[in-house]
Amino acid sequence: MATSTDRSQEIQKLHELIKGIDYGMFTTVDDDGSLHSYPMSKSSEINSEATLWFFTYAASHKVTEVEHHKQVNVSFSSSEQQRYVSISGTSELVKDRNKMRELWKPELKTWFPKGLDEPDISLLKVNINQVNYWDSASSFKSTKISF
Amino acid sequence: MATSTDRSQEIQKLHELIKGIDYGMFTTVDDDGSLHSYPMSKSSEINSEATLWFFTYAASHKVTEVEHHKQVNVSFSSSEQQRYVSISGTSELVKDRNKMRELWKPELKTWFPKGLDEPDISLLKVNINQVNYWDSASSFKSTKISF
Repeated sequence: MATSTDRSQEIQKLHELIKGIDYGMFTTVDDDGSLHSYPMSKSSEINSEATLWFFTYAASHKVTEVEHHKQVNVSFSSSEQQRYVSISGTSELVKDRNKMRELWKPELKTWFPKGLDEPDISLLKVNINQVNYWDSASSFKSTKISF
Repeated sequence: MATSTDRSQEIQKLHELIKGIDYGMFTTVDDDGSLHSYPMSKSSEINSEATLWFFTYAASHKVTEVEHHKQVNVSFSSSEQQRYVSISGTSELVKDRNKMRELWKPELKTWFPKGLDEPDISLLKVNINQVNYWDSASSFKSTKISF
């Protein structure tokens, strides 16, 4: 089992890997077994917890998918930086107004024109279990981080 | 059902969407239900068929995942072009030497140093069922193409 020092190093490494890559592709499994990806803007950098947060509408299809199959993947790709990150975890819908106020950023108005007054606005939290990444520094060999 | 003209227009649209984005994130489902993504260099542009091809080692874990759960997603992201493409389909392992010779490109030597003489070198074919894309031209509204 990872010690707390290991864990803080792992979280710091993940923070560096995805810093500056705003959009992740959030992949879910549908009831028929098919996989769908959705571009989602991450709502904060990775800090002390191994979690990702995304704003969503609670009635969107991806939320139904997550409620039926909670395991998801979020990938971050940067061709300029030659870096590819796969984040495996479980996701859940969170309707916490305080958390929404903490995470809100004006750029999100593109999708949520009324901001936090948007009916149905919610959060998808991703609890991270495993990260794999590939970059030019590792000659594109896969490196694994377990949480 | 799509007519052949519709189909050729859909394939042309997909060709344009992912042209110039070399790496896709290939997402699979593991036996425990967890989702993993792998960066993979696409081995040809989309031409007359709604298929994607990737070189792989037949013994790699993603091949086992595909054999147990054939539904996959391949996403292509370009932050410069503000374009995000989700491709849902089914995948299968193909060990066709002629197809490998047709698709081989020297850049693949990074992963397959011996080229087509690499033991175990194979192809993963993806038969495309559905494409969704988001770009600045559509104000990041999702557009769906069914095949």
